[in-house]
Amino acid sequence: MSAQNALYAQSGGVTATINASACGVIETARRHRGKIGRVYAARNGILGALAEDLIDTSAESTTAIRALMHTPGGAFGSCRFDLSPMPQGRSQYERLIQVFRAHNIGHFFYNGGNGSAETAHLIATELPRLGWPVTAIAIPKTIDNDIVHSDCSPGFGSVAKFVATSMREAMADLASMSHSSTKVFVMEVMGRYTGWIAAACGLAQPADKDGPLLLLVPEIHFDRRRFLAAVRLRIARYGWCAVAVAEGLKLRNGRRLTQAGGDGIPGHEQLGGVAPLIAAMVRDSLKVKVHWSALDYVQRAARHLASKTDVAQAYAVGRAAVGYALQGRSDVMPVIERISDRPYRWRVTPAPLAGIMNREKRLPRRFLTADGWRLTAHARGYFTPLIRGEAWPPFADGLPVHASLKLRRVRPKLKSTFRENP
Amino acid sequence: MSAQNALYAQSGGVTATINASACGVIETARRHRGKIGRVYAARNGILGALAEDLIDTSAESTTAIRALMHTPGGAFGSCRFDLSPMPQGRSQYERLIQVFRAHNIGHFFYNGGNGSAETAHLIATELPRLGWPVTAIAIPKTIDNDIVHSDCSPGFGSVAKFVATSMREAMADLASMSHSSTKVFVMEVMGRYTGWIAAACGLAQPADKDGPLLLLVPEIHFDRRRFLAAVRLRIARYGWCAVAVAEGLKLRNGRRLTQAGGDGIPGHEQLGGVAPLIAAMVRDSLKVKVHWSALDYVQRAARHLASKTDVAQAYAVGRAAVGYALQGRSDVMPVIERISDRPYRWRVTPAPLAGIMNREKRLPRRFLTADGWRLTAHARGYFTPLIRGEAWPPFADGLPVHASLKLRRVRPKLKSTFRENP
Repeated sequence: MSAQNALYAQSGGVTATINASACGVIETARRHRGKIGRVYAARNGILGALAEDLIDTSAESTTAIRALMHTPGGAFGSCRFDLSPMPQGRSQYERLIQVFRAHNIGHFFYNGGNGSAETAHLIATELPRLGWPVTAIAIPKTIDNDIVHSDCSPGFGSVAKFVATSMREAMADLASMSHSSTKVFVMEVMGRYTGWIAAACGLAQPADKDGPLLLLVPEIHFDRRRFLAAVRLRIARYGWCAVAVAEGLKLRNGRRLTQAGGDGIPGHEQLGGVAPLIAAMVRDSLKVKVHWSALDYVQRAARHLASKTDVAQAYAVGRAAVGYALQGRSDVMPVIERISDRPYRWRVTPAPLAGIMNREKRLPRRFLTADGWRLTAHARGYFTPLIRGEAWPPFADGLPVHASLKLRRVRPKLKSTFRENP
Repeated sequence: MSAQNALYAQSGGVTATINASACGVIETARRHRGKIGRVYAARNGILGALAEDLIDTSAESTTAIRALMHTPGGAFGSCRFDLSPMPQGRSQYERLIQVFRAHNIGHFFYNGGNGSAETAHLIATELPRLGWPVTAIAIPKTIDNDIVHSDCSPGFGSVAKFVATSMREAMADLASMSHSSTKVFVMEVMGRYTGWIAAACGLAQPADKDGPLLLLVPEIHFDRRRFLAAVRLRIARYGWCAVAVAEGLKLRNGRRLTQAGGDGIPGHEQLGGVAPLIAAMVRDSLKVKVHWSALDYVQRAARHLASKTDVAQAYAVGRAAVGYALQGRSDVMPVIERISDRPYRWRVTPAPLAGIMNREKRLPRRFLTADGWRLTAHARGYFTPLIRGEAWPPFADGLPVHASLKLRRVRPKLKSTFRENP
């Protein structure tokens, strides 16, 4: 009997390094051809598995697979869709068994965050129960850095490096404009529930006693009066003030600022960004010129400035996932364990999915100073190794070159179709 | 009699490479110590000259001056302030003569855009007329690329490289999300009056017949119905659509979209960004999920991804300015002349300020296709050499290292003060 095939899929919001994990999976599987057959990729995450829309990665050259290391986005398509637990999910599992049987799939790798870990867990537990033995492994990926039991999440180091760099550069710009023009700059970063990315912006400023940069995270309720006083103080002291704000910043009543219509500023309706709200608040209250930016996809796709540490970890969790499958381990996630800060040492270890899925790691309060505005030394010790090292992609004619894949579809074998409305 | 000193100053919105011009000025002057004495830098542009707030760059080490090559922002501070023509400006010129005489300043270099060229021109013409012979030279700098008689403006190539790279990366992200989530991404870039930066985003897409990326520039009036039809068509054809929009996008009546309160979308008041307006328009009309970003300072400060061509040109115009001063030329700007596209060859030549100041070079219509959405081959031939080559800054602990200057103030010699309210 020939070796069973593997199915790899990407899920949730993509990152600058999720494709490095894909590369880790595919390259490692290719090194064990006797034990793992072909690696298929589901198009658009689990939806492609349900739809029998599979890509045969064995049609891709060694060079093309290697190029995934420097390609942002999700090369095989992602999705915002999770499987349902039993009994509602029964038809989904039965469909997956049809597809897995038709294509002799014995290993499933799901590259995603907290929600995707549950989908991997359900496949690991329900498919064998319903008659199709499979090893299912969740590969961690999220810019949000909120996966429990993992010291950090692949994808986070690169976004942290990009936002901290951008803030440092924008602060240099602001400092030179502040004398006769702009006095405040507000930069909005991702982070709907957690402040990991906003906090990483704090690295832009040296570890001094104080400084012109303020951090606003969802874990600390926003107090308009305190904030404006802090901005005013910094303008007086430094001539200018920079602000890094997480998109999910909350008021004391638990509502997001962007839901609250601008904290009661009349005429300032929300258009999807917290930065313009904060900017308007500062401008109207302190009567100074304010600039703001909202980075959105640009931050999480910024592969041109990826962290070398992050790229290495993203690859390592992909490789480890295949190693676990070869050992017959299932229902686990390869997570990053930090062994030491200086020198920074880490390793990949397996963690059971049941303890990870649908949980969320918040930014610890001790990462920020008592006033909440700046990073502590502890936080710097945590963040710095994660953004260290550059991993420049190749450039041609001034622009980064990304992988060019054939994405050859596997001929469908099933007559029936299954349509899951996403 | 000892050689006269020089005064260098930065003006207007800064760029990722304005300090490379400062480096070109200072290093070149240091090579001609017999002919040029010290190079002073005015703090915060011409305002520092009026206030006798001068920095002695001779206190800076060779290494520190060299580090200006990879430092964004304006190292000596910039300003938003122009001198007034005669007769209103008489007190300003008289004050400048006091300061120049007190510090034996015989050469003035003003690093800025169209408005700053007029200030340099006024100094070149009025100061000698009022009794202080001086050579005054404007050094070009603007991300807007709108300086006439120069093939391109130092600062533009780097911002063009950054926005085109960011758009290419964000398109990879969007493509992977589009099946079950976001279908449209809108990226706002700078360009209040001209579409040079927005047009450069077009490089993110290969030179195919068509594509999923639309460009919106101020030179072409925005037509809501046509735009929405173009977005709808691209979603149908590619599954998704990306939009690059200049902040100064205008309606047919000549008003900016951001002034018009969102083209009549009820409840969508302006908060300073055109991207959220476009995003809301698409979301509400086409009922699809939309993401948007507004880059603001982050784009023009992005020295980490500077164009090697741009850095070389920024340095070259600084060096040329000193060369002109040594030849006794005044009232000119060193501009970039393109000799050929392939291979790209350029040189620096002097152009009289009277023909440059307060004029503006718009994006030529032939740079965009007939439908207005994409770049022509002609435009690609123009843009590509400007973004070519990488000029990575040094990094430490994961972040770019910037110049650390002493900024030693020259002891003031005048008893009187002069306060210009900026």
